[in-house]
Amino acid sequence: MTWGRAYTRTTFEADIVAALIVTIMLIPQALAYALLAGLPAQIGLYGSILPLVVYALLGTSRTLAVGPVAIISLMTAAAVGQIAARGTPEYLGAAIALAFLSGLMFLAMGFLRLGFITAFLSHPVISGFISATGLLIAAGQVKHFLGTGAEGQTLLPMISGIVENLGAIKPVTVLISTLSIGFLFWSRKHLKGVLEALGMAARPAMILSRAAPLFAVAGTTALTWGFGLERFGLATVGTIPRGLPMPALPPFDLALWRELALPAALITIIGYVETISVAQTLAAKRRQRIDPDQELIAQGGINLASAFSGGLPISGGFARSVVNFDAGAATPAAGAFTAVGMALATLFLTPALYHLPKATLAATIFTAVISLIDVKAIGKTWRYSRADGFAMVVTILVTLFEGVVAGISAGVVLSILLQLWRASRPHAAVMGQVPGTEHFRNIRRHRVIETPEVLSIRIDESLWFPNARFLEDTIYDAVAAEPAIRHVVLNCPAINYIDASALEALEAVNARLKDAGVLLHLSEVKGPVMDRLMRSDLLAHLGGKVYLTQFDALMALAPEVTRETLAMPRCETARRAADSAAGNDFNPT
Amino acid sequence: MTWGRAYTRTTFEADIVAALIVTIMLIPQALAYALLAGLPAQIGLYGSILPLVVYALLGTSRTLAVGPVAIISLMTAAAVGQIAARGTPEYLGAAIALAFLSGLMFLAMGFLRLGFITAFLSHPVISGFISATGLLIAAGQVKHFLGTGAEGQTLLPMISGIVENLGAIKPVTVLISTLSIGFLFWSRKHLKGVLEALGMAARPAMILSRAAPLFAVAGTTALTWGFGLERFGLATVGTIPRGLPMPALPPFDLALWRELALPAALITIIGYVETISVAQTLAAKRRQRIDPDQELIAQGGINLASAFSGGLPISGGFARSVVNFDAGAATPAAGAFTAVGMALATLFLTPALYHLPKATLAATIFTAVISLIDVKAIGKTWRYSRADGFAMVVTILVTLFEGVVAGISAGVVLSILLQLWRASRPHAAVMGQVPGTEHFRNIRRHRVIETPEVLSIRIDESLWFPNARFLEDTIYDAVAAEPAIRHVVLNCPAINYIDASALEALEAVNARLKDAGVLLHLSEVKGPVMDRLMRSDLLAHLGGKVYLTQFDALMALAPEVTRETLAMPRCETARRAADSAAGNDFNPT
Repeated sequence: MTWGRAYTRTTFEADIVAALIVTIMLIPQALAYALLAGLPAQIGLYGSILPLVVYALLGTSRTLAVGPVAIISLMTAAAVGQIAARGTPEYLGAAIALAFLSGLMFLAMGFLRLGFITAFLSHPVISGFISATGLLIAAGQVKHFLGTGAEGQTLLPMISGIVENLGAIKPVTVLISTLSIGFLFWSRKHLKGVLEALGMAARPAMILSRAAPLFAVAGTTALTWGFGLERFGLATVGTIPRGLPMPALPPFDLALWRELALPAALITIIGYVETISVAQTLAAKRRQRIDPDQELIAQGGINLASAFSGGLPISGGFARSVVNFDAGAATPAAGAFTAVGMALATLFLTPALYHLPKATLAATIFTAVISLIDVKAIGKTWRYSRADGFAMVVTILVTLFEGVVAGISAGVVLSILLQLWRASRPHAAVMGQVPGTEHFRNIRRHRVIETPEVLSIRIDESLWFPNARFLEDTIYDAVAAEPAIRHVVLNCPAINYIDASALEALEAVNARLKDAGVLLHLSEVKGPVMDRLMRSDLLAHLGGKVYLTQFDALMALAPEVTRETLAMPRCETARRAADSAAGNDFNPT
Repeated sequence: MTWGRAYTRTTFEADIVAALIVTIMLIPQALAYALLAGLPAQIGLYGSILPLVVYALLGTSRTLAVGPVAIISLMTAAAVGQIAARGTPEYLGAAIALAFLSGLMFLAMGFLRLGFITAFLSHPVISGFISATGLLIAAGQVKHFLGTGAEGQTLLPMISGIVENLGAIKPVTVLISTLSIGFLFWSRKHLKGVLEALGMAARPAMILSRAAPLFAVAGTTALTWGFGLERFGLATVGTIPRGLPMPALPPFDLALWRELALPAALITIIGYVETISVAQTLAAKRRQRIDPDQELIAQGGINLASAFSGGLPISGGFARSVVNFDAGAATPAAGAFTAVGMALATLFLTPALYHLPKATLAATIFTAVISLIDVKAIGKTWRYSRADGFAMVVTILVTLFEGVVAGISAGVVLSILLQLWRASRPHAAVMGQVPGTEHFRNIRRHRVIETPEVLSIRIDESLWFPNARFLEDTIYDAVAAEPAIRHVVLNCPAINYIDASALEALEAVNARLKDAGVLLHLSEVKGPVMDRLMRSDLLAHLGGKVYLTQFDALMALAPEVTRETLAMPRCETARRAADSAAGNDFNPT
């Protein structure tokens, strides 16, 4: 709330203009995303009034625009559809309970500082999930374009539903859909340019082009009313109850809450990841700060506010926030002004929406979510990392064919398993001394001198449970292969920490090597790692010693060879190795 | 099978002696662990014949002794008890199916080289699980000691069962139990010493002391037979079918297999972790090699062999393998000779076991598993790492009060979550130049010189999805706090890899900083990390450059301050920092 003290007439004007533009954009979105969630249209309006005021009070982003968003609405439909049939009071009650539960989870995460939980979602998994969800939402609109009633939450039932109902296509509905989609795609690319060519200034042209969905709504509503298109089977929004939402309590039903707990948790995590990413993108552009923990509390507040005013689960919207930012919103007050605009629309505009075709709302959803589908990201991720690309593709396929809950769950589990798999086989190198230097390098990549009785081994990864066995296997194998070995020096410059499993593995290695007449030494142990080892028994039982450098270790354990190597002329390989070594391990292999 | 070529009379004699000792030890164990699994006593014998021959052919450890083991038997009882009632043919069939499934899983892991899966079990979780299982097994024997019939797979039902049946205690059973337990504990500590004091040589004294359980069995069987103790309610083993097991197929029932899949997977993982750890401990002492993938195949073979000969899930036994090793077993042939011993016992010894009290077998189990309970490990782990200690305590509590499947599952999930949590908040430092040197150190720990327009930041951890957000937060916060910053140099000597999530975070940081007029640079990037970055777009879009060293970066970005600092006399702090720096980051903070 620091911005309140510096509030001036200029910021007030900027906020009012931004609020006007966002309101124009939000009205059709609020209606459309409520329908996407399987709810009556006014529920979207209810979720766009009180929560915006609450965000202005609790949020730390100056430009985040909250309200109903496509992905959260789809997840709501998937979760609530498991529990009740669309159109029943139970369905609405479950959606409200979902917003309430999600709000409680946000608050709990905020107060317990559990924001790190969202870190378990890797970017490729989120990106794949959003692309797949976008495709699911887009495919789900096709039935509205055709005027047929097929249902289905995953791709196969959707497609078979469309194919089965091809005979029931309503031509007028297809016409209205085509007009709406065509206009929306055209206006996104060309409307601003055309308006400017007609002599309009850049700023009003931009504002008007953002209002394209509202034009589509107004135009098709007028057409429907003028020609009485309902008689051709065109589905319209119909009666929207007029007036502001009454404050109400969400249903208190523990069995219902238990059923909704997992979807609520996933909605919370996805909502937070999306919100924080938008908020941070915009804040960084103006060098402002976002407080992630406070942001969790704000997201909890808006979802509770939505639940208490009869609304659905909501979140920060990407497109809407960018528009708010571009329109010059200076403070969160812009959000509060948007709330006033939405309240006025709910009070006075709803009768005019009676003849609004559902196909037009489907078109606004379709054009919005198409941009979520990022096919290029798959190839890009795959090229950079097979493991990440694999996790992404699996997330997409499972989301499309098994649904959103299964998709995000599979992605999370798989990305964790793949990371553990990667960590279970770290890069390791047996090292030798570079002639003429104090440096040690991988014997398989450099011309270096080895000492038969001393094994120098470096592991390029922190030591923790996935690689504890690798550590043991590697050392035992090396020692078993070379009977001359009397000392093993574990070189630790790449080890940032050692967990209890790896500590036990080191203790086991130390004890077993001792039994076999071999001493274990450590070198170049980092400060924080050493601090922690001091709290263990390893150093007391260690057969060998801890050396400051690998060179120190070799000077103590094989002084003749080491000194002799130091006196050798540097060969070309050695010189290059030493040069890069001056860059503190620029190329450590 | 390389050992076969070098087989001599000496190794043959060593193997025969070891086989004799292990057979004497294995007979009561095989009977006892079958009863622990809720199965007829002979099933334990069946699991100790053919599998031992198979291990001699497939295994890579020269001294591992396989057969029924306590923990796997308890896990078998827990899994099969969910499906059928004890004593029914379905119960036996399910146990055989469990051995079969576990065998298939071992083979699949071996051929697909999935041994790394076991790396997901951290040592504290395994240690906690084993302690808790040992306690559960020990507590489960109390009913046999008292002669009452209480059932229960977790601690609370066990205790309440014991308390409820206190009135039904059978004094003769308590007497036999007390004698057996007392003798077994006494003989473990003192029998060898007493025999040596009586003039026996060390080696036969050792062999005889290992045979203490067999003496207990023989002694109490004789007592029961001589005094007809069954009439006082003493439960005995009764009729054991004589003869070798008939080869048979396990039940092919997909519904049953599906129910047993999770327990079979957990038995496989626990069995493997235990086996490989024993095998490796013993192999390392003689500098022999274990092949983990081949070991998986061998474990698969022994469990299939057990299933096909009507036996239960089995594994490598710790105590038995140590005895085999100490007794001088030179090759896996010792295991095959043990199989011959067990076959002879099954053929000829079973009638003699009719009067064997179950309380005596319970006593051999009790004295064996008591040593599994490692209370000291809890404090040791807690002191070294709170996170690991926490995972251990939760594993113990959940295993004791919710059962083995819940316990091991909770431990695995928790240890992964805790590692991700740790990884989500790595150590990071803003750095400044140490006067008179080219070194850079943490500004909060050293007297260093900062440059207002260049932010030098080092993150002491690989960059991957749990800390991708941390990376963004840290840099944005630092840049938002200091308006003078024009360059950010990310110093990367501790970064062993960058995953796709962290790459995206770096791209986002780069783009957002550029928007805010700040350039992102990298320094001291390791070779393998650089190789991978070359495959991404980051380097092409990077606002700044990649420098070989942090000093190079500062010389390019803030040459005056850097040169001036270099010319300063080293102060005491700086000298010490530089000294430790000579040790390639011995104390990098």
